[in-house]
Amino acid sequence: MDPARIRALLERVALRELTVDDALGELRSLPYSELGFATVDHHRHLRRGFPEVVFGQGKTSQQIVAILQELARGGGNCLVTRIDAERAETVCRSVAGTRYDPVARACVLEQQPFEDLGRGVVLIVCAGTSDVPVAEEAALTAQIMGNRVERLFDVGVAGLHRLLSRRELLDAAEVIVVVAGMEGALPSVVGGLVARPVIAVPTSVGYGASFGGIAALLAMLNACASGVSVVNIDNGFGAGFSAALMNRRRATP
Amino acid sequence: MDPARIRALLERVALRELTVDDALGELRSLPYSELGFATVDHHRHLRRGFPEVVFGQGKTSQQIVAILQELARGGGNCLVTRIDAERAETVCRSVAGTRYDPVARACVLEQQPFEDLGRGVVLIVCAGTSDVPVAEEAALTAQIMGNRVERLFDVGVAGLHRLLSRRELLDAAEVIVVVAGMEGALPSVVGGLVARPVIAVPTSVGYGASFGGIAALLAMLNACASGVSVVNIDNGFGAGFSAALMNRRRATP
Amino acid sequence: MDPARIRALLERVALRELTVDDALGELRSLPYSELGFATVDHHRHLRRGFPEVVFGQGKTSQQIVAILQELARGGGNCLVTRIDAERAETVCRSVAGTRYDPVARACVLEQQPFEDLGRGVVLIVCAGTSDVPVAEEAALTAQIMGNRVERLFDVGVAGLHRLLSRRELLDAAEVIVVVAGMEGALPSVVGGLVARPVIAVPTSVGYGASFGGIAALLAMLNACASGVSVVNIDNGFGAGFSAALMNRRRATP
Amino acid sequence: MDPARIRALLERVALRELTVDDALGELRSLPYSELGFATVDHHRHLRRGFPEVVFGQGKTSQQIVAILQELARGGGNCLVTRIDAERAETVCRSVAGTRYDPVARACVLEQQPFEDLGRGVVLIVCAGTSDVPVAEEAALTAQIMGNRVERLFDVGVAGLHRLLSRRELLDAAEVIVVVAGMEGALPSVVGGLVARPVIAVPTSVGYGASFGGIAALLAMLNACASGVSVVNIDNGFGAGFSAALMNRRRATP
Amino acid sequence: MDPARIRALLERVALRELTVDDALGELRSLPYSELGFATVDHHRHLRRGFPEVVFGQGKTSQQIVAILQELARGGGNCLVTRIDAERAETVCRSVAGTRYDPVARACVLEQQPFEDLGRGVVLIVCAGTSDVPVAEEAALTAQIMGNRVERLFDVGVAGLHRLLSRRELLDAAEVIVVVAGMEGALPSVVGGLVARPVIAVPTSVGYGASFGGIAALLAMLNACASGVSVVNIDNGFGAGFSAALMNRRRATP
Amino acid sequence: MDPARIRALLERVALRELTVDDALGELRSLPYSELGFATVDHHRHLRRGFPEVVFGQGKTSQQIVAILQELARGGGNCLVTRIDAERAETVCRSVAGTRYDPVARACVLEQQPFEDLGRGVVLIVCAGTSDVPVAEEAALTAQIMGNRVERLFDVGVAGLHRLLSRRELLDAAEVIVVVAGMEGALPSVVGGLVARPVIAVPTSVGYGASFGGIAALLAMLNACASGVSVVNIDNGFGAGFSAALMNRRRATP
Amino acid sequence: MDPARIRALLERVALRELTVDDALGELRSLPYSELGFATVDHHRHLRRGFPEVVFGQGKTSQQIVAILQELARGGGNCLVTRIDAERAETVCRSVAGTRYDPVARACVLEQQPFEDLGRGVVLIVCAGTSDVPVAEEAALTAQIMGNRVERLFDVGVAGLHRLLSRRELLDAAEVIVVVAGMEGALPSVVGGLVARPVIAVPTSVGYGASFGGIAALLAMLNACASGVSVVNIDNGFGAGFSAALMNRRRATP
Amino acid sequence: MDPARIRALLERVALRELTVDDALGELRSLPYSELGFATVDHHRHLRRGFPEVVFGQGKTSQQIVAILQELARGGGNCLVTRIDAERAETVCRSVAGTRYDPVARACVLEQQPFEDLGRGVVLIVCAGTSDVPVAEEAALTAQIMGNRVERLFDVGVAGLHRLLSRRELLDAAEVIVVVAGMEGALPSVVGGLVARPVIAVPTSVGYGASFGGIAALLAMLNACASGVSVVNIDNGFGAGFSAALMNRRRATP
Repeated sequence: MDPARIRALLERVALRELTVDDALGELRSLPYSELGFATVDHHRHLRRGFPEVVFGQGKTSQQIVAILQELARGGGNCLVTRIDAERAETVCRSVAGTRYDPVARACVLEQQPFEDLGRGVVLIVCAGTSDVPVAEEAALTAQIMGNRVERLFDVGVAGLHRLLSRRELLDAAEVIVVVAGMEGALPSVVGGLVARPVIAVPTSVGYGASFGGIAALLAMLNACASGVSVVNIDNGFGAGFSAALMNRRRATP
Repeated sequence: MDPARIRALLERVALRELTVDDALGELRSLPYSELGFATVDHHRHLRRGFPEVVFGQGKTSQQIVAILQELARGGGNCLVTRIDAERAETVCRSVAGTRYDPVARACVLEQQPFEDLGRGVVLIVCAGTSDVPVAEEAALTAQIMGNRVERLFDVGVAGLHRLLSRRELLDAAEVIVVVAGMEGALPSVVGGLVARPVIAVPTSVGYGASFGGIAALLAMLNACASGVSVVNIDNGFGAGFSAALMNRRRATP
Repeated sequence: MDPARIRALLERVALRELTVDDALGELRSLPYSELGFATVDHHRHLRRGFPEVVFGQGKTSQQIVAILQELARGGGNCLVTRIDAERAETVCRSVAGTRYDPVARACVLEQQPFEDLGRGVVLIVCAGTSDVPVAEEAALTAQIMGNRVERLFDVGVAGLHRLLSRRELLDAAEVIVVVAGMEGALPSVVGGLVARPVIAVPTSVGYGASFGGIAALLAMLNACASGVSVVNIDNGFGAGFSAALMNRRRATP
Repeated sequence: MDPARIRALLERVALRELTVDDALGELRSLPYSELGFATVDHHRHLRRGFPEVVFGQGKTSQQIVAILQELARGGGNCLVTRIDAERAETVCRSVAGTRYDPVARACVLEQQPFEDLGRGVVLIVCAGTSDVPVAEEAALTAQIMGNRVERLFDVGVAGLHRLLSRRELLDAAEVIVVVAGMEGALPSVVGGLVARPVIAVPTSVGYGASFGGIAALLAMLNACASGVSVVNIDNGFGAGFSAALMNRRRATP
Repeated sequence: MDPARIRALLERVALRELTVDDALGELRSLPYSELGFATVDHHRHLRRGFPEVVFGQGKTSQQIVAILQELARGGGNCLVTRIDAERAETVCRSVAGTRYDPVARACVLEQQPFEDLGRGVVLIVCAGTSDVPVAEEAALTAQIMGNRVERLFDVGVAGLHRLLSRRELLDAAEVIVVVAGMEGALPSVVGGLVARPVIAVPTSVGYGASFGGIAALLAMLNACASGVSVVNIDNGFGAGFSAALMNRRRATP
Repeated sequence: MDPARIRALLERVALRELTVDDALGELRSLPYSELGFATVDHHRHLRRGFPEVVFGQGKTSQQIVAILQELARGGGNCLVTRIDAERAETVCRSVAGTRYDPVARACVLEQQPFEDLGRGVVLIVCAGTSDVPVAEEAALTAQIMGNRVERLFDVGVAGLHRLLSRRELLDAAEVIVVVAGMEGALPSVVGGLVARPVIAVPTSVGYGASFGGIAALLAMLNACASGVSVVNIDNGFGAGFSAALMNRRRATP
Repeated sequence: MDPARIRALLERVALRELTVDDALGELRSLPYSELGFATVDHHRHLRRGFPEVVFGQGKTSQQIVAILQELARGGGNCLVTRIDAERAETVCRSVAGTRYDPVARACVLEQQPFEDLGRGVVLIVCAGTSDVPVAEEAALTAQIMGNRVERLFDVGVAGLHRLLSRRELLDAAEVIVVVAGMEGALPSVVGGLVARPVIAVPTSVGYGASFGGIAALLAMLNACASGVSVVNIDNGFGAGFSAALMNRRRATP
Repeated sequence: MDPARIRALLERVALRELTVDDALGELRSLPYSELGFATVDHHRHLRRGFPEVVFGQGKTSQQIVAILQELARGGGNCLVTRIDAERAETVCRSVAGTRYDPVARACVLEQQPFEDLGRGVVLIVCAGTSDVPVAEEAALTAQIMGNRVERLFDVGVAGLHRLLSRRELLDAAEVIVVVAGMEGALPSVVGGLVARPVIAVPTSVGYGASFGGIAALLAMLNACASGVSVVNIDNGFGAGFSAALMNRRRATP
């Protein structure tokens, strides 16, 4: 619920356009109405640019449609992650304005125009082409949260020159998300080149003793470069979200 | 090497107070002189507030003294992590101006006055008293890198009221470091209360199936709250360093 | 075999309505007749309210029907766990009186009316909507064993207010089952709020480094709150069964 | 927040006693302050029979003495777990009334007379002599929390007759704690013999592929008998605490 | 190489029938040719009762048919393990005399009449009905290798009376194979009751933290009863084979 | 319970010598008392050649002396495993007739003359000199249980000729114990050369990714040669015990 | 950056041709641009015999076709690994000159005639028939990189005579690739027989506690024979590539 | 045994200076005399430059002295790895000509003058100063086996310029050993820069989730650069030995 709506409601109470009982009823009808007043959720809605997020994995398209329609009523932007093309088709057909990003495997419903809420650019770096879906999930998440996003893809450590030749991108970024599978070495290299926060995302790309991303995860946790923190395997959404928080201009009190 | 020194050197060349050969020699005498010119290290020294860091674990006090004396010549601040009281005594006696923080198990040599380089406050939260050494390592690291630091200790999830009664601290922080062992649940709870970046630090505190911090590490990687990223087990230094990068005001170009 | 039946049998022997040989034959025809006399199973049947349970996973619908028909002859309640809708349809069609609970993924055959055998209420708490199937398996198990069951769902630690706003439910429960995946933090929080036994059920909900529930399992084993014990991953049945034992009024000797 | 307070607030807005801005501010500041958390600790102290507990591992005797003296002021019973004989001597000498149990490796300060708060007997079963320290920690914990405790030790599954010859003890118990290392089979066997809650405690006893208790832990989580829940490796305290909660007579409201 | 040959070689050198260079060359060329390896396979074929074995998993029915036809030419018995019904149908149709055992999931081609080669009976014990396929694979293997086989199925440790009531079977066996999944406790119990070799077979039966049989495997390796040795998870064939070797009457020299 | 007793009971009911209630009570009280367990330990003592065994690890010399003195009263042989030289000295000084084997790290008290109870020879094979202590523990165990033992040491797979040159030893053995650390390959090779039972003992010898014997353990469980079964890491005693059971001449009834 | 350029820069400062600010800026902008990275790829293309490689796993046939067509334009040889027959058919039909090797599961486009670039023969050894696909991937890779390749298949350690009877092949090879699953013992045995580099390839062949190749991987890392190095599980390509590098005649400068 | 000695012996037989019996006796007195003739070891001694190696870990100085004195009699070079300064002092004092390398933690007895047996240079690269002991063990091993060795130390991926500035060393090497702990990324980077075989050595350097070198080991097995093979954690000896085999000029037949 957006604060303007609460303010409007209070003003209508002050103007006697709305009875106390009706106002109370309206406040109660917010999510978690059983709380009396949805304090925390209220706070959450006060944050500009925070999308409503549905984790699509393991949900049917019917379930997603129902949740999305409910969330969309709030008027904010909505993001559905981990959704394949087949289910996405149903969702896009059922919820007007929703579009599907097949690379990021996500549906987006943008009801609010893009507003740049960040201090600078969020740069998404990835090691190989197989890491692109996770990288795009991060990019999409950061973008919908009000960040300018740039991409530097396919710059794995086995061909360092590709990375090094684009140093100006690294130097210009406010926050850098680095996505890599296999041996997960890229965040160490990037972290050694810049003095900005690096969010490392291990991917499940690899085979044999990569163990579904564990090799990359461990490598990133042990990165010899300082300033690297790590999110869960394949968690592009989490990386994009964290990057958005780091890049965000603080609301003036 | 601090940029003022390079500028001064160049000016002396311009003023013919220094010959080109001598200037070249002086530039070469920087660390990694074999590079011809220590490009990257040079860049590193340009960053205000970055301390020189020695990882003390596995080094003798003699080795630490030697390294610290070398680093101290640069005129910046120095930090020695993972050093016990016994070795620290030798170090403090041998390198003038060095003090020991027994809780953080670190030596500090502050040659530069504190300058606040951050946008706001870095808050260090920890779950139990056994987590304090790691939390203090994070706090000390952030402080020496030019950040105002506040602490909120002993607020584990088994006694939520202690955390909840200090919400104003959480709300006011620019970046939050959350340190916890055992089940590692605290970052999820903190991440659900604030809209700021949370850096989670698992500690090796626990026994039995905590497996030296793996239980907490896995919990933090799987935190249900968005905006949480994770560093290595017991890596207070890494958390403090990342927090400093996130809180840092961007140098104007 | 219910003790009333053994008593009736003995009385018919005493009344000479039944010869010793026939009585012996009938006693022998109980399960594990090869034991001479099925001491242990006999004991098991003496317990009021204990359902016969079929673990449905990996069994064909034909196998389940056969076992269920056999068990149903005892006249008690029967529970089939881990059965999908397709196989359940066959089972319900073949064994009269059986109904399917699609959320708990279980079939129930209630041949005995509900009798409250517990001291109080068994409360089933779960963290997210994906944990509901396991939570419902626990609820159904406890209910069929003669317990009043209440539910508190979707109260994960990233939104603490939802849990905290329902404290009266937590305070009123005799035993609490807490079901959670991902970082598995909820049992620690619940265990810190109440002075009742908490049975923690890790679920395989999550991805990446959740490792099919290991992250949640380890977190729960390391819960910093006292009074928490843990069952196997996704083992809603085991949790409901344990809760029923804990809540049970002791039979008077 | 209770709706009456929100209604009052709205009424003050309607009456123009409160400006819209102030009302908005007050709504924003509500989060958890209404949840009455200050009473939580209070509640904890009200609970009869709950000892104050100090986890002694990794603490110096000086630290333990300081904490124990602080806790003792409350007038309740106190328990220090995981403390070796050497540190215990200092503690007992420094805090009057404290005694050391060398088998359970725990210090006890009983300031309140024993009061039986349980419904029945808590039975502590253990498999081998090496498991006795963990079993005694459980026994001591349960005893100090107001439970009658009985012991059935050295009844491992490789010599079943020892267990089976004492069935009357098993049958009479209200709650059973089963402590075992190595293959951890005993809880399954005990759980198959009784219809009471079984709390399984894996111990780190064993060698080779017992992996410090993991073998026993996994076995217990997979116990084929229903009604078994598990605590952390070597966590005798946790088992005794859980058993006390399960055995406890409910306080009348 | 037998010393007589070296002596002969040296004598030829002494007699100048062989140059030093040629002798050196011959000494160099000796490696293993003297070790009589051609006889190894020969020995294998001489062993009465050893079937030819095809590991069917991962092979097409065409591949199995080709191998089986080749092996069958030797006139001995043949066993195909890990083959499902569909592929087995093709195999049985293509290789005359082959029959399929759907429980053991194995094809058998018995070209030799059964001859009892053992000292006594091989007893196959299993814990639950889900363990039966592995148990039957063991039974079939032992039987085709010339052993009298008896079965004692569904005697898991949660219902000890079923096992205990058949002690005469345990006492009479020469070798006992014990098959169990979940917590894998049965071999410890059986090993404690008899003074015969016990071969433990963990099965992948179970869920959650059974980890596909690891829980049972670890339990069996840590069995507190002496005389238990272990084969790989689900390796009924290996257990049957080992049992056959243990039970075998030694060929008279 | 034997049916005659149940029949007698029923007849007494029929004759009104026993009330129905008393009969019901007697049926309930039957559990395992009829299973003759008192004889189990008795049986154990009847077995010729079975030593009393004390697992010395983690026990003080005083504890070992006390247990050993108790066991020695039975007049049989006694074995103390996992005991270092220092504690052994006390034990040998305190219990007359006890000798220490420093390689096997075991104390032996032989009160009975050696009697060959086996069919043939138990051969102990080991890969490297570091594996010898475990091998000697196996040898000593087998010897004290009445077996002729031979040794074939230091025949690792990296120098096959050493093993192959002693094939006659392999061929002559009734049972073979193979002890190896590092990659644990030796049991596969030995198992491929003979048609006798092979008991594989992984040792914790190795470094890095040998993980204290896990590498060898896994290799042995996956041995491509049939007829190999495995005991726990470093479990020389268990291997010797199993070998003794396999080699044992059956007692004539 | 070569010192001459820095000298020139300093001289221009001395000559006032360059302001101090501009010099400082130029020094800052240097990073890696001087390191000549544009030549890295160039070097790669200069290497005779290096194929362009596409990792086919997880790519659609359309994606593979597009990449392959792009790569083929370079005129060199191309290799597509991890591609099944179905996708390969499309690829072969779409890119002229491409052929499919169904055993190695790879597509090859040889645009350059075979040129022997090696010093000797690369020998590919494998343990069982199930290891052949990985072995053939290694063979194909080495062959397309300009190596004479020989094969020695199905020589597992359970039948050593097969390996030993072909020692001349082992002795003649320049580099040996050894492919094995299950217990992974073969590289140790081969490494003990020859004085040439051995590249060990663990395969995921096996079941139960082979854990998809981990058992073999660990065994190979712990090989007691010196001279063995290891590549990832099932990584035949990597082994063939490494073998080609080792066998390669050095280009004359 | 060096071939010259065998030739001399044969010549003395030819000259009748030595009887056949004496010659046979002398041949038999070689190591593994029980073989009749030590075929394999003979072969091993024929290889020029192969040192005798003693793995010092877990051996007393007395044991090492005894073995070393025995080996030294062969007249070749000897290497003792994994030996600390204290034991080394005894060894050097007892075996004339032995020197200790405290960084490599190895003793060397060079009885043969250095002879360059390699095609080119073996380059040893390491990431951090903590990796130096393992790197020096590799260097020493390669050197004593007749290789020119160069070093490139402290060139971790967090400061790429240090590595890149020495590319000429990388380009000039015949074989490259890369030693790294923590995230183990260096082999990938080096492997991407050169077209020579890279032997990766993970070290146990690191903390937290480095798990004693597992993180680095996994990273190296998953190296995205081709041409990288891996040895065991901290196995500098194995890497140096493999490098020596790869660099070795083939003996002309």
